[in-house]
Amino acid sequence: MSPLDPRAEFSHDELQLATRNHGLPLEALRYDVTPPGLHYLLIHWDIPAVDPGSWTLEVGGEVERPRSLSLADIRARPAVTSQVTFECAGNGRAQLSPRPISQPWLVEAVGSAEWTGTPLRGVLEEAGVRDDAVEILFSGLDHGIENGVEQDYERSLEVADAMRDDVLLAYEMNGQPLLPQHGYPARLIVPGWYGMAHVKWLARVTALREPFRGYQQSTAYMLLESENDPGVPVTRMLPRSLMVPPGMPDFMSRERFLDRQPCVIEGRAWSGYGSITSVDVSTDGGETWDPAALGPPMGPWAWRSWSWEWEVPSPGRHALCSRAADDAGNEQPTEVRWNLKGYANNVVQRVPVTVR
Amino acid sequence: MSPLDPRAEFSHDELQLATRNHGLPLEALRYDVTPPGLHYLLIHWDIPAVDPGSWTLEVGGEVERPRSLSLADIRARPAVTSQVTFECAGNGRAQLSPRPISQPWLVEAVGSAEWTGTPLRGVLEEAGVRDDAVEILFSGLDHGIENGVEQDYERSLEVADAMRDDVLLAYEMNGQPLLPQHGYPARLIVPGWYGMAHVKWLARVTALREPFRGYQQSTAYMLLESENDPGVPVTRMLPRSLMVPPGMPDFMSRERFLDRQPCVIEGRAWSGYGSITSVDVSTDGGETWDPAALGPPMGPWAWRSWSWEWEVPSPGRHALCSRAADDAGNEQPTEVRWNLKGYANNVVQRVPVTVR
Repeated sequence: MSPLDPRAEFSHDELQLATRNHGLPLEALRYDVTPPGLHYLLIHWDIPAVDPGSWTLEVGGEVERPRSLSLADIRARPAVTSQVTFECAGNGRAQLSPRPISQPWLVEAVGSAEWTGTPLRGVLEEAGVRDDAVEILFSGLDHGIENGVEQDYERSLEVADAMRDDVLLAYEMNGQPLLPQHGYPARLIVPGWYGMAHVKWLARVTALREPFRGYQQSTAYMLLESENDPGVPVTRMLPRSLMVPPGMPDFMSRERFLDRQPCVIEGRAWSGYGSITSVDVSTDGGETWDPAALGPPMGPWAWRSWSWEWEVPSPGRHALCSRAADDAGNEQPTEVRWNLKGYANNVVQRVPVTVR
Repeated sequence: MSPLDPRAEFSHDELQLATRNHGLPLEALRYDVTPPGLHYLLIHWDIPAVDPGSWTLEVGGEVERPRSLSLADIRARPAVTSQVTFECAGNGRAQLSPRPISQPWLVEAVGSAEWTGTPLRGVLEEAGVRDDAVEILFSGLDHGIENGVEQDYERSLEVADAMRDDVLLAYEMNGQPLLPQHGYPARLIVPGWYGMAHVKWLARVTALREPFRGYQQSTAYMLLESENDPGVPVTRMLPRSLMVPPGMPDFMSRERFLDRQPCVIEGRAWSGYGSITSVDVSTDGGETWDPAALGPPMGPWAWRSWSWEWEVPSPGRHALCSRAADDAGNEQPTEVRWNLKGYANNVVQRVPVTVR
């Protein structure tokens, strides 16, 4: 186990990001669907100001029939609503040592919303993606500088991934128009992938003959062992489980206190590689594990609830942990797997509690 | 001027709070009414889980006719909608040196929403507050430990303050039921006061014969020069102005870059003591000031927009500042006024920009 070092100190720049972006307060894991304002947010630059009347989505590049779609055009297309859970690729970064300096997430950069949109596939088929196209590029209206590179936020998907039935051009979240901070008027939803793929404030969808090598594709969001490592792109979410911290907290330390009586520990688990097959709970920091009961699935891309009864909490301090596994054979590790930029750290959560 | 020290380091405990609670991303000052999820949040413990069907508000203590009001009872009463801007009393705390350790706000702990509710006064009048009552106590459902004291969140107002026409038992924010994190199903709104007075998740309203001396009234939220200072309670908001940072940001430093062309600087200003009478802007870190144009008032308790044209931005680095004054004679200081717990720091905002 590698719990977060409580002596860690964070920089002014990290704090500036943390006061803007925010995670899911963990007690909000209690909601099947995350209410507005509680879903995690990671916004690289500023939230763009978009006039929905003049906004269009430009579909072009290696296509037979380039087109310009208004918001009304997109809303008039076949609509699908799907609950999709996703988390920031940097979730867990602040637990790494040495710590990569970026948005300092502990474990809370997740949310699960009902997204309504039209399948991207239909839009691409009508535009007629040419056979020589290898990737589809998604360009956002958010613009700024990162590591010296001025850029629009841009990410690509291979054509086969972009053509998946469940990839959406989404314009509603939980039955309401997207909030400004979630990509209004339209964003991409790529179920199963970390958040960087779900491009917000979409402006352009462009079929490419060559793989995209832009900053957010080839420099950021790479799993690297060192500066010289060619690396592996970050794509799908490794399994993770999080619990609603039981009892009540201390304001400043967030340490939890609970009474000496049976207690049901509840949480959520998800994976971008497949279905959750098990969640185990430990009350001794990962020495011994006991299986939790899984709730009913809420769809192929939504998190799954789990619960476990702590029958005899004994007085004193305990470290509660949960560990999820998926049907693709992935399981959460009990030790942090370090990488240079702090992505995909799905180490088991550790919740210190004191039973009184 | 006392800009934030960019070498400051923040503790693990401060970061834990910052990943839960969050401020207004400053570009969202562009919205007259803050959209859901962008309003600042400061939640001492956990967001309570409330069943609206069984929830009641208990009105009691030194009253002739104690009563128990359901949510339907409250919704059936005369309704008022009012835009109210408020900020956390700890806004600006992270700029103090030495820094009080609590939620580490920089400048962004503010929001401005349309609150709908029923005037508290009518409820108190129907209950019949006895002549010997001196204060009204408001008790929330949020519960936890702070500095070793286990408690419900509780704050009081003197009877005359509680009887103000504009104090609301609010159940809607921006025309929708309160979100869980904003106090569902009902909260107090005390226009002009810092956020600690706007008690969320209200459970009880109790008329008292003696002044309330609980933790959040007499230990927290006191302006203290030292540990032995009897102190002054934090009440109304001192004037503050904030600007939408112009240009575009760097991801990590949030440093702003803009082009060498005329640029309109816009922002908002508010005060809990009266109307905003002026906002001045400086491009040289507070050496010289130029008056901004004030937009129309949007109500007695809402922030006021302002704008100023920077006609000739010269290449290089500048420190943009804005300074508000109100008709009660208060003006934002250019130097931090330190206090032990870091409340009410309304020092002028300082936005470093580079003109290219």
